[in-house]
Amino acid sequence: MSRPTGAWRHQQQHRGRMWAASPVFRRQLVLLRSLLPQSPPSSPPSSVAGRRFAPLSSPSGTSGSLRAAHAMAAAAAVYEADAEAVVRRITPPLDRARHKGQAGKIAVIGGCREYTGAPYFAAISALKVGADLSHVFCTKDAATVIKSYSPELIVHPILEESYSVRDDERASVSSKILNEVAKWMERFDCIVVGPGLGRDSFLLDCVSNIMKHARQANIPTVVDGDGLFLITNNLGLVEGNPLAILTPNVYEYKRLVQKVLNCDVNEETASEQLTALCQKIGGVTIMQKGKADVISDGKTVTQVSTFGSPRRCGGQGDILSGSVAVFTSWARHFILSNELPTEKRVNPTTLGCIAGSLLLRKAASLAFEKNKRSTVTTDIIEFLGKSLEDICPAEH
Amino acid sequence: MSRPTGAWRHQQQHRGRMWAASPVFRRQLVLLRSLLPQSPPSSPPSSVAGRRFAPLSSPSGTSGSLRAAHAMAAAAAVYEADAEAVVRRITPPLDRARHKGQAGKIAVIGGCREYTGAPYFAAISALKVGADLSHVFCTKDAATVIKSYSPELIVHPILEESYSVRDDERASVSSKILNEVAKWMERFDCIVVGPGLGRDSFLLDCVSNIMKHARQANIPTVVDGDGLFLITNNLGLVEGNPLAILTPNVYEYKRLVQKVLNCDVNEETASEQLTALCQKIGGVTIMQKGKADVISDGKTVTQVSTFGSPRRCGGQGDILSGSVAVFTSWARHFILSNELPTEKRVNPTTLGCIAGSLLLRKAASLAFEKNKRSTVTTDIIEFLGKSLEDICPAEH
Repeated sequence: MSRPTGAWRHQQQHRGRMWAASPVFRRQLVLLRSLLPQSPPSSPPSSVAGRRFAPLSSPSGTSGSLRAAHAMAAAAAVYEADAEAVVRRITPPLDRARHKGQAGKIAVIGGCREYTGAPYFAAISALKVGADLSHVFCTKDAATVIKSYSPELIVHPILEESYSVRDDERASVSSKILNEVAKWMERFDCIVVGPGLGRDSFLLDCVSNIMKHARQANIPTVVDGDGLFLITNNLGLVEGNPLAILTPNVYEYKRLVQKVLNCDVNEETASEQLTALCQKIGGVTIMQKGKADVISDGKTVTQVSTFGSPRRCGGQGDILSGSVAVFTSWARHFILSNELPTEKRVNPTTLGCIAGSLLLRKAASLAFEKNKRSTVTTDIIEFLGKSLEDICPAEH
Repeated sequence: MSRPTGAWRHQQQHRGRMWAASPVFRRQLVLLRSLLPQSPPSSPPSSVAGRRFAPLSSPSGTSGSLRAAHAMAAAAAVYEADAEAVVRRITPPLDRARHKGQAGKIAVIGGCREYTGAPYFAAISALKVGADLSHVFCTKDAATVIKSYSPELIVHPILEESYSVRDDERASVSSKILNEVAKWMERFDCIVVGPGLGRDSFLLDCVSNIMKHARQANIPTVVDGDGLFLITNNLGLVEGNPLAILTPNVYEYKRLVQKVLNCDVNEETASEQLTALCQKIGGVTIMQKGKADVISDGKTVTQVSTFGSPRRCGGQGDILSGSVAVFTSWARHFILSNELPTEKRVNPTTLGCIAGSLLLRKAASLAFEKNKRSTVTTDIIEFLGKSLEDICPAEH
């Protein structure tokens, strides 16, 4: 990670946000430090130019002893992530001895009568980033279509909407759906809840049960789109779950702030508000999407502001959710397999968000360069592979 | 905009039309003038070569004071639009601070048991021109297929045809369909009614209700294909709606003239007849498609005669309707956001037609150059992006 740069400062001033915190709090920050083996814990954050990275640490004795108010003020400092270094560090080597599935098994819960593109985008992006298997759990109506988009996906036509279920069948159908998903759950490294989920009440009830089950099974869960609608109205689904990642856009973030903090979004205290939001929900990670994607787990605030594309075609959020799922599972594996002591461990969800954000931005930039105003989401997906290869060549 | 050219005259003579009006009426014409900031209202129309353009004005005190007969005769002068300048002027800059949806949200109402290609062509063209979101409202049969053409579209399987609805259910189904569309309507910047709509009586009744709702919500509405069949038999659906755009081909135009003016199409007085048709229906904009696309809102008559392609494969009208929808929404936004006094405002529907016509012609030309006799509609859609980029580079 790196210190804020001049360019970064200018950008934030332009956004009218007041990120800076006092030097006292800065020193107490839960810094995103370089943890390269040769780098002692007290060394300064590595430079952006250096592009070197390792798991991020909490200097011992800080987070526990800070009062909540201090922690919030401290979080006002936002550091630009050395996102390329994060990608390079967490992306697993391509080892010939590995078996199918070891590079990641992802599931997307979404796809209903109206929406089929969104879950497809999320699921195919997971594969294109490098996961080995990508599943979709959706309604029967949606399944045929999603299957037709690509033979690469495993599509389970098991969800139901209210219109297709009689009132007296609801309990049994709901139970059957949960059982169907549950028997797969343990196999997944991360699930994505929300792309093209829709807002049918029965379907959302079933998905609530699936989320509870995923939590019990310790499966990281990315929540996007209508999944955010669901959890905003039922915060218990993510409260206190450090493996939950929320990825709201500007409108979804606004609703979340109103619901949880009971106030409006305040640009002047944006990072404090984001930190408070994570803390209030209880340890979840939030990536607030926008001109820069700002990421917090309630302790640190990081951003990725690499320029992507000025096109705002629908579907880019779905690519992001699928990519974050893969990178989070990789980050989790990387941190666990490096046997760092608990206090040195960094939240893999933060790393997953940083990496996913950068990759989408790189791919969107390449797609826009080629297709200009007519760029659509499929064009961006086409460049996920090249973007990752540019950052982190497969031979490394 | 520019004066009629020699080439243009030759073309029109060849068509056997008598466009010219007397110099007296010419001076009183509701001219399509250059409104560039540095250009005073009294300056002559800019040349085609100049390629500069701004919103089009009505010289004050003309349209209101002219008698109907004068207005009709005056409208006999047809000006070749400086269509490239129109495209450049109304196409919004790609602003990094924008959010999803701000470049346009379009909906196509069409797609039935028989037709699925037409609504797809219209909706995907809207995205390729630069809209952020593109929806289709169609029958259940059509939805699965349209979804499978592209994950980029949001397809709502909500329309019903007579064969699938019992007589005693008609009222409730009709009401449910309207409610389904109505809850989305406010979000759309423009809708397209007609591509692949078919002629089922129950379906057309439902679409009539949707059109009435769109009108109440002030949503610009492009009417093409079977939508023109519908409104020709029920003129009340568009009468007096300045946000209605009709895009008839030669046969559809003939039926419209017969129904509204109670006479046959007269090539000798073609522009007077077009003007009279717009006036009689009450302020709608009509783009009469042909060798040149001739556009009138009952006050001005403009044409786009840039050569496109000699291929007449079906589906080009659908590209046009989707493109006109996007450009009309952009033109409307441009005119409203530039706070021109009412008398200086030009009908955004006219600008949308001019821009859409040119873009299709450019794309068709490039597609024909590549594919010759085997050119199909998909080939033309592929060139929408390049055509727009050639006229109006994304960095501008």
